[in-house]
Amino acid sequence: MRKQIIMSNNLLKRKKGIISGALDSNSIAWKVAEKCVEQGAEIVLTNAPIAMRMGEINNLAEKTNAIIVPCDVTDNDQVLELVDKSMEHFGGKFDFMLHSIGMSLNVRKGRPYTDLKYDWTHKTYDISALSFHKMIQACYQKDAINDWGSILGLTYIAAQRVFPDYSEMSESKAILESIARNFGYHYGKKNKVRVNTISQSPTVTTAGSGVKGFDDFISYAEKMSPLGNADAEACADYCISMFSDFTKMVTMQNLFHDGGFSFTGVSNEVLR
Amino acid sequence: MRKQIIMSNNLLKRKKGIISGALDSNSIAWKVAEKCVEQGAEIVLTNAPIAMRMGEINNLAEKTNAIIVPCDVTDNDQVLELVDKSMEHFGGKFDFMLHSIGMSLNVRKGRPYTDLKYDWTHKTYDISALSFHKMIQACYQKDAINDWGSILGLTYIAAQRVFPDYSEMSESKAILESIARNFGYHYGKKNKVRVNTISQSPTVTTAGSGVKGFDDFISYAEKMSPLGNADAEACADYCISMFSDFTKMVTMQNLFHDGGFSFTGVSNEVLR
Amino acid sequence: MRKQIIMSNNLLKRKKGIISGALDSNSIAWKVAEKCVEQGAEIVLTNAPIAMRMGEINNLAEKTNAIIVPCDVTDNDQVLELVDKSMEHFGGKFDFMLHSIGMSLNVRKGRPYTDLKYDWTHKTYDISALSFHKMIQACYQKDAINDWGSILGLTYIAAQRVFPDYSEMSESKAILESIARNFGYHYGKKNKVRVNTISQSPTVTTAGSGVKGFDDFISYAEKMSPLGNADAEACADYCISMFSDFTKMVTMQNLFHDGGFSFTGVSNEVLR
Amino acid sequence: MRKQIIMSNNLLKRKKGIISGALDSNSIAWKVAEKCVEQGAEIVLTNAPIAMRMGEINNLAEKTNAIIVPCDVTDNDQVLELVDKSMEHFGGKFDFMLHSIGMSLNVRKGRPYTDLKYDWTHKTYDISALSFHKMIQACYQKDAINDWGSILGLTYIAAQRVFPDYSEMSESKAILESIARNFGYHYGKKNKVRVNTISQSPTVTTAGSGVKGFDDFISYAEKMSPLGNADAEACADYCISMFSDFTKMVTMQNLFHDGGFSFTGVSNEVLR
Repeated sequence: MRKQIIMSNNLLKRKKGIISGALDSNSIAWKVAEKCVEQGAEIVLTNAPIAMRMGEINNLAEKTNAIIVPCDVTDNDQVLELVDKSMEHFGGKFDFMLHSIGMSLNVRKGRPYTDLKYDWTHKTYDISALSFHKMIQACYQKDAINDWGSILGLTYIAAQRVFPDYSEMSESKAILESIARNFGYHYGKKNKVRVNTISQSPTVTTAGSGVKGFDDFISYAEKMSPLGNADAEACADYCISMFSDFTKMVTMQNLFHDGGFSFTGVSNEVLR
Repeated sequence: MRKQIIMSNNLLKRKKGIISGALDSNSIAWKVAEKCVEQGAEIVLTNAPIAMRMGEINNLAEKTNAIIVPCDVTDNDQVLELVDKSMEHFGGKFDFMLHSIGMSLNVRKGRPYTDLKYDWTHKTYDISALSFHKMIQACYQKDAINDWGSILGLTYIAAQRVFPDYSEMSESKAILESIARNFGYHYGKKNKVRVNTISQSPTVTTAGSGVKGFDDFISYAEKMSPLGNADAEACADYCISMFSDFTKMVTMQNLFHDGGFSFTGVSNEVLR
Repeated sequence: MRKQIIMSNNLLKRKKGIISGALDSNSIAWKVAEKCVEQGAEIVLTNAPIAMRMGEINNLAEKTNAIIVPCDVTDNDQVLELVDKSMEHFGGKFDFMLHSIGMSLNVRKGRPYTDLKYDWTHKTYDISALSFHKMIQACYQKDAINDWGSILGLTYIAAQRVFPDYSEMSESKAILESIARNFGYHYGKKNKVRVNTISQSPTVTTAGSGVKGFDDFISYAEKMSPLGNADAEACADYCISMFSDFTKMVTMQNLFHDGGFSFTGVSNEVLR
Repeated sequence: MRKQIIMSNNLLKRKKGIISGALDSNSIAWKVAEKCVEQGAEIVLTNAPIAMRMGEINNLAEKTNAIIVPCDVTDNDQVLELVDKSMEHFGGKFDFMLHSIGMSLNVRKGRPYTDLKYDWTHKTYDISALSFHKMIQACYQKDAINDWGSILGLTYIAAQRVFPDYSEMSESKAILESIARNFGYHYGKKNKVRVNTISQSPTVTTAGSGVKGFDDFISYAEKMSPLGNADAEACADYCISMFSDFTKMVTMQNLFHDGGFSFTGVSNEVLR
């Protein structure tokens, strides 16, 4: 208790929100969940039923005094139910939501970008990007989010530039960022709800580690970034600032959280 | 004959290419087809079987001495066949390809962005964006394009900024532009083939005129653009320059062809 | 006293910094100064000697328990002295710095962009942009900022797109943002100090109100921004978040704080 | 003579223009001059008196049947005179203009970005960026350019991202690109004259070779660019296309001509 008083800035006091994508303690979403609660928020956790079987999300739920609502985000009915159950749990509207979901079937199954299986591509878009639209649309239609609420999605700079191994996830992230802009417009008009994406450094998570050549890439990004790569904990801090009232007029943005990688053309370390 | 000699700069002499999306004489693709031939190229025309029944593409084929290969671009087998038949017709590899295909089911059926039917969204992405990947992948795998060939897709600035009525087509264009970057990387490495998108002014075409509030928007864009809106004919000219050897090192770009709209924050005409 | 405890999140506890550009209570810098102190920081105020004669900065200094160091930022010696005096006052290094300085001679004297007097343009760049480089260079050379310190400059979207009346200030802001990127690289490498710019909505300040047609423009921007224009107070909140430890890995960025203006292509209000 | 007929596409037939910055046969401007004439144009060459003493511009003038008008572009009177003499030579208005001028005093004299001498910085901006404004303003005020004329400046991606050795030239190029946008707006409104910048690969020219670590950098850029670095000749081709009538509605753009460097986040060659 004393610890919490000392560490907390109470940035999310009296706020409530949904956190998706906490698989294990390496997940960015896991850190976000912990920090949200540290900052005074109440949360609902959600993840795919299959991810929950592998994951340790129960520990997190206990630690953060949260409920877990399993949800396959490719199924719109389950997404609608997620919002209903969250409102029921919170006793009304909530204030923030994190989308931290992404998976590429073609990458996972080793098919290169020049030989995509298109059924898989649709599935990839559905899981990684349309799920964001579904979650927001469900909230919008059910009027689930308080005025000045804040919605975040996690993305990657491959939406802007080519990172060859990222493959069809580039398009998924391009969709995700476009959804943030477009729904940010509509939800901003209706309820002053803002929608943004955070474009995070490559991060050693259980999900991220599946991508080919990932270690080499992490080390390259580290050398290119004046502050080094941002880790999951720093990303969670940034999410907190974006959920807080200190950023109320920021919307429809893609915010790079990457130690300066995005605007470094070349570093002396890489040149050498 | 004399007229052609006078008008032509022979920019595409000895070049061959595929032009998709010529519906009628208002289509940008129609103008591109005419100008390609004027500039010395041989072409293959393609369109969806359903569009051909409505269209006047036979007149164009006759005028441009082209064959027509019907192709439903959502069907990968038909796309592969399109490339086979084109190579057969040309007697080998070709040099350029235009993607000018787009249609949104949710827009057409009047569902707003905040109430998308997701099956339709997938269909929209498939028609408007994944078709571009399919066409390029087919060429890549069949080694159908000569070194330094040029591939173009037509897009719209809604991929960068919100134009509320453009709805899910925003995401479609974001995908399209991402595909240009990503395949531009891979095809550039393999065969020096470049891939770009042209982001065109709103244009009064038979396809464009389906979008809600389009006339108001055309007039707004006209007022915002220092040179006025670019028309279909100017766009075709720009396509010619991008197919020509004068732009050989331009790749993975999204090129605004819009009379300056994209970088005008506000014009005096709009402010008044 | 009680009020402050309730309102404060202690985001800047034990942090120290320099705030430039507080002219009167309409100034963004004025609000930043107040909020910095509310959040637990100690500050030094600075402004041009001439601005101080017109201004009410003494009231602010009293209220925020700050000292004032007059400084003509076009004179590098005075800038070096500002840093020396600040370090002396703080008893060592400090943590943050706000640049909020801008003035165009050609605009003020009514010369249009198509008839610039170039001596004035140099002076404009010097006041509005090179002053930022000078302030950072002085800190860098004197090792005046603690590791993970945060430097901010205020800018405007005219650096990216044309707003005709903004004239040569467009170039000034382009310089300013480029300095943030470039010094962000060097200072990040050396001391993990981050440098960013905040691109703020048009704001009714004493400085801003000098620009021609400003009221029409404010109203246009209001209609284009889904959340409306961001005001000076919201901007100050955002500055606080950027000075805090919640944004430690954000550097070399230009951050739009504008209610969504920057990514709205057109709004229904403007179209109508 | 026969050779010219075969090679030329007559893209600039009956067009006239000013080419600045041709120092020797390695210069991009030199190639542009040659190709302009090949494509049917008449040209005026200009360069700084001091550069002409070192240069071989007389050979170029002879070869291209051009006159040379010496001009120190930091002196507005000389710029006005350049436009007068060009109009006199052409017997009236002209159609295009190339700005290919840049030099950094701090770089040349070995002062790092973190220790700029600001007098030199002003001089650098004056030579490398304000000269562009002066040349355009002189044309605008004297009504020297035909409707639909085309003005180009050469720039570099350091205006967007940090390349540490490029130093204060980053800001110079940021100014240059901002001038293209802003004057593009005004000149577009008045005479449909378009203004663009071409952001070129690092190029081995006599000017470029002065920059520290340039060879390493050229080789890095080569590995990052799917098509390799664009050379001076390809750049000249691209300039021709931008002066031609095939690109009439392109204005206020910064056009990357770099083999794909700008949108490659990392290449497999660099990662290895």
